[in-house]
Amino acid sequence: MLLEAAGHAPWHPAAREAFSGLVDQGWADPRRLSAEGRRARLLLEAARESLAAGLGARTDEVRLTASHTQSLHAAVRGVVRGRRRSGATVLASAVERAAVLAAGRFAGELETVAVDAFGRVDAAAMAARLAGQGSTGQEAAGQGGVALAALQHANGEVGTVQPVEEVGAAARDAGVPLLVDAGSSLGHVPAPSTWDLLAANPGDWGGPSGVGVLAVRPRVRWSPDWPEDEDEWFPGGVSVPAAFAAAAALDAALADRRESEVRRRRQVARIRARVAAEVPDVDVVGDPEDRLPHVVTFSCLYVDGEALTSALDREGFAVASGSACTSGAEEPSHVLAAMGALTHGNVRLALHRSVTDEDVERFCDVLPGVVARVRDLLGAQGL
Amino acid sequence: MLLEAAGHAPWHPAAREAFSGLVDQGWADPRRLSAEGRRARLLLEAARESLAAGLGARTDEVRLTASHTQSLHAAVRGVVRGRRRSGATVLASAVERAAVLAAGRFAGELETVAVDAFGRVDAAAMAARLAGQGSTGQEAAGQGGVALAALQHANGEVGTVQPVEEVGAAARDAGVPLLVDAGSSLGHVPAPSTWDLLAANPGDWGGPSGVGVLAVRPRVRWSPDWPEDEDEWFPGGVSVPAAFAAAAALDAALADRRESEVRRRRQVARIRARVAAEVPDVDVVGDPEDRLPHVVTFSCLYVDGEALTSALDREGFAVASGSACTSGAEEPSHVLAAMGALTHGNVRLALHRSVTDEDVERFCDVLPGVVARVRDLLGAQGL
Repeated sequence: MLLEAAGHAPWHPAAREAFSGLVDQGWADPRRLSAEGRRARLLLEAARESLAAGLGARTDEVRLTASHTQSLHAAVRGVVRGRRRSGATVLASAVERAAVLAAGRFAGELETVAVDAFGRVDAAAMAARLAGQGSTGQEAAGQGGVALAALQHANGEVGTVQPVEEVGAAARDAGVPLLVDAGSSLGHVPAPSTWDLLAANPGDWGGPSGVGVLAVRPRVRWSPDWPEDEDEWFPGGVSVPAAFAAAAALDAALADRRESEVRRRRQVARIRARVAAEVPDVDVVGDPEDRLPHVVTFSCLYVDGEALTSALDREGFAVASGSACTSGAEEPSHVLAAMGALTHGNVRLALHRSVTDEDVERFCDVLPGVVARVRDLLGAQGL
Repeated sequence: MLLEAAGHAPWHPAAREAFSGLVDQGWADPRRLSAEGRRARLLLEAARESLAAGLGARTDEVRLTASHTQSLHAAVRGVVRGRRRSGATVLASAVERAAVLAAGRFAGELETVAVDAFGRVDAAAMAARLAGQGSTGQEAAGQGGVALAALQHANGEVGTVQPVEEVGAAARDAGVPLLVDAGSSLGHVPAPSTWDLLAANPGDWGGPSGVGVLAVRPRVRWSPDWPEDEDEWFPGGVSVPAAFAAAAALDAALADRRESEVRRRRQVARIRARVAAEVPDVDVVGDPEDRLPHVVTFSCLYVDGEALTSALDREGFAVASGSACTSGAEEPSHVLAAMGALTHGNVRLALHRSVTDEDVERFCDVLPGVVARVRDLLGAQGL
């Protein structure tokens, strides 16, 4: 039972259908003048138009890259280079995705803004820094000019929704572009309306991997921080069938978004309540109300997240642990650390739309025993 | 009738089958510890192993990127950054793919080596420059140390095979790594054996777009010229089903490579002969013997390549014109310019394996009339 589909959900049947239908026509190079090339170009345009509608953007604002990571890297690097006269600081919440933080460090001077115990950024501090009134007290590079502000729509690890409107207003007043990472939210909740650059992740809503989406307002000053190419934002371009399938999956996800949101919100509330009541020494994290409908995370004292993940996997439940972004080594999550929460023994669920209420009950029935057994093995029970 | 499939061939049926078979299991994140993640990781490893066999590389040398362009950019940028103490010069033949030249200009100081009338690089000049004995007289940045040498296996626009062994020996003696672009050759002729970095293009051999392959010898000194990520050579990684389909397509292409090579070599020889004999004022370009089996290019005096392409498209023949790399605007080819050949009125064919002898005859029957009509329209007939 797949209980953690963040960023890599199974393909939506609509994506599969769109993809198969295009393999016979979408292989051609959209840059070519032949009939095949024209057809590929039209398909790519149709995909961008459809994605734009889902994002609340204009078609000409939508760029395609090879992954969500590539979208975030391009956004940060392109803007930092384009606005180098204004400053080199990338001002980001401490709980942004690792790709945003890594790109900020690489391209400019990363300065992070603290979050509260729910993982919500201190909007007043971020606004004050944007207005030039003070340091944030976090990873800071002095008081240089801010090239780019970055704030996720909602945190994909703990579910907490961020104050994008408030920070967006401050960024607008300061003349600083705002990058909004909607990689964990688009397809699950309505798209954010405040952004200068908006990144979204088809892999998260049931589209294929190998495609990322980045919308950029025309007013944003940017410059390529990579070699020249016809595809200005992502040299080499992307797979046409994959782009089309990504668009079809988003259409399908949005068609029953409300119903799916209500159901998953109820399932997550149920999990949060049962975990808190039935697992001893557990910390259920993230804002209990203002949150993504499908994400739930909790940390168990005295155990290792990897051991829990493996034990649950053996029971047939696919969950995640550690950082959502750099999870090969299941590294401790920088998100939980920034929140002051336990970084070990955490379990993260991102419910796929196919999860039923029965699946949820079964998981909650099994969990306390699994945690107890893992604690026993580690000799940690009753500490 | 598709007569130009370079870089964007229709999917091989084996690729389609491999892809469809994986959509149900390959969507998961290969970084995750769950059963699904492990399965995705194994599939990705199997794809790399199979690609390595086709490239003549070791599995651990094979990296995956999102496109051939991304592979070439990463190779040039990574090596230039890693070897910055040795020098910043990227020494490349003047007829490398645009992505290599653009990356050389972006990451270091591009210095190009002249080619002869067939488009074959001056190996002696390239070797002399590597040995530090002199300038190449081309786009030159003084006599700085060479960070990287780049030479394609064969030219994808005119078909001429390059002296990779000779240049490779000189690079080895000079301690300079050699990047070999096999994007137009792999799957059609045996893989080159001399390289330090080898780039190949699944889109060219009937694999999906959205995947590029880059093999790197362990001895090559390099450093990421992009933000840190678990996927060191291409942050964010690639689509697992696409990687697997790319490997399946290469296996299939190599299984009947010899038969396909013999057939297409005969077809190309036939086209070269008939075009030279039956179209007045035409220049058939590239080495007549030491060439790729499937590529044929000719330039017609007094006409525009785009007009010819469109006229042939209306007759049902998909061909290409202009530069193979930056063809949206059908820009004049830098390859033909470097050869001293006509850059206008050129027509490029890269025969797909499905092309029959009858297709070839039909094309040759139709071509002289099409050229004459286009010349008539332009008032250029009989000039």
